[in-house]
Amino acid sequence: MSAIRTATLADWAQIHPFWQRIVADGETYAYPEDLTSEQARTLWYDGSDRRDTAVVVLEEDGRVLGSAKMGPNRPARGSHIGTASFMVDEAARGRGVGRRLGEHVVAWHRELGFAGIQFSAVVETNTGAVRLWQRLGFEIVGTVPGAFDSRRHGRVGLHVMYLDLTPES
Amino acid sequence: MSAIRTATLADWAQIHPFWQRIVADGETYAYPEDLTSEQARTLWYDGSDRRDTAVVVLEEDGRVLGSAKMGPNRPARGSHIGTASFMVDEAARGRGVGRRLGEHVVAWHRELGFAGIQFSAVVETNTGAVRLWQRLGFEIVGTVPGAFDSRRHGRVGLHVMYLDLTPES
Repeated sequence: MSAIRTATLADWAQIHPFWQRIVADGETYAYPEDLTSEQARTLWYDGSDRRDTAVVVLEEDGRVLGSAKMGPNRPARGSHIGTASFMVDEAARGRGVGRRLGEHVVAWHRELGFAGIQFSAVVETNTGAVRLWQRLGFEIVGTVPGAFDSRRHGRVGLHVMYLDLTPES
Repeated sequence: MSAIRTATLADWAQIHPFWQRIVADGETYAYPEDLTSEQARTLWYDGSDRRDTAVVVLEEDGRVLGSAKMGPNRPARGSHIGTASFMVDEAARGRGVGRRLGEHVVAWHRELGFAGIQFSAVVETNTGAVRLWQRLGFEIVGTVPGAFDSRRHGRVGLHVMYLDLTPES
């Protein structure tokens, strides 16, 4: 059985290996590639216990297959819009882990009353992610040309994607 | 005479009053409004002496009229794109302070070899700023609807604006 639950600090030992491989792979995230495990964890778990942020894992039989973090995209006058980041163990690809984490993130934002969700930097060549977010209702608001230096594709665009969660939508 | 120069820590005593008024005015920045002076300074001067970041002031006869901060928009695989933020004392509006700081920021990025400059959150009702960036060559890449909770206008869009600085452009 698999389930999505709040991440504990103990989960980092399972998250970190795939987190690090995904960053080092150079196709999806503009995170520093030379972080210690502790620095990377601090980036993923921001250390707060604020009600408006969360980090979850999708776990199957004690094995963590993916993780997502979520919370306000900006403070104060921008805090009604959420954002999220996702890491899925490449060994568990094609099994709907990203989709389930994405659905969880959308439901979490909806329950907390966020007005929308913004992804600020979806790499345009990461077509699996782009299609997944589109299936969840996200639209491409715009693309910053060449803003991501992909290891394999060179400079490619970063999509800003947005899902409206206001009641009338 | 007025000139743009690197900001010193001593300049904060002059920057902070208008910085704070601009944030409290609630029309241009999604910064927290309850920061201490020290917290706000840390947000503006990130404390690093990295060659790829800078904070400047425009000073006239010993008086600081405005300030700009600039540097990479993202780390690592996004660090070839810069970004900047601007604060101009409202008592000095209409005198070209924002324009001169903007021109300085563009020249600084060009000299350091950045491929472009991204402004991620230009409030759409801040039409003076939008027009100024357009005059400097920035284009609106997209607009996240309702992403800024303006004190006077309610929820308004945040423009993502971009200026290409690659040699062929």
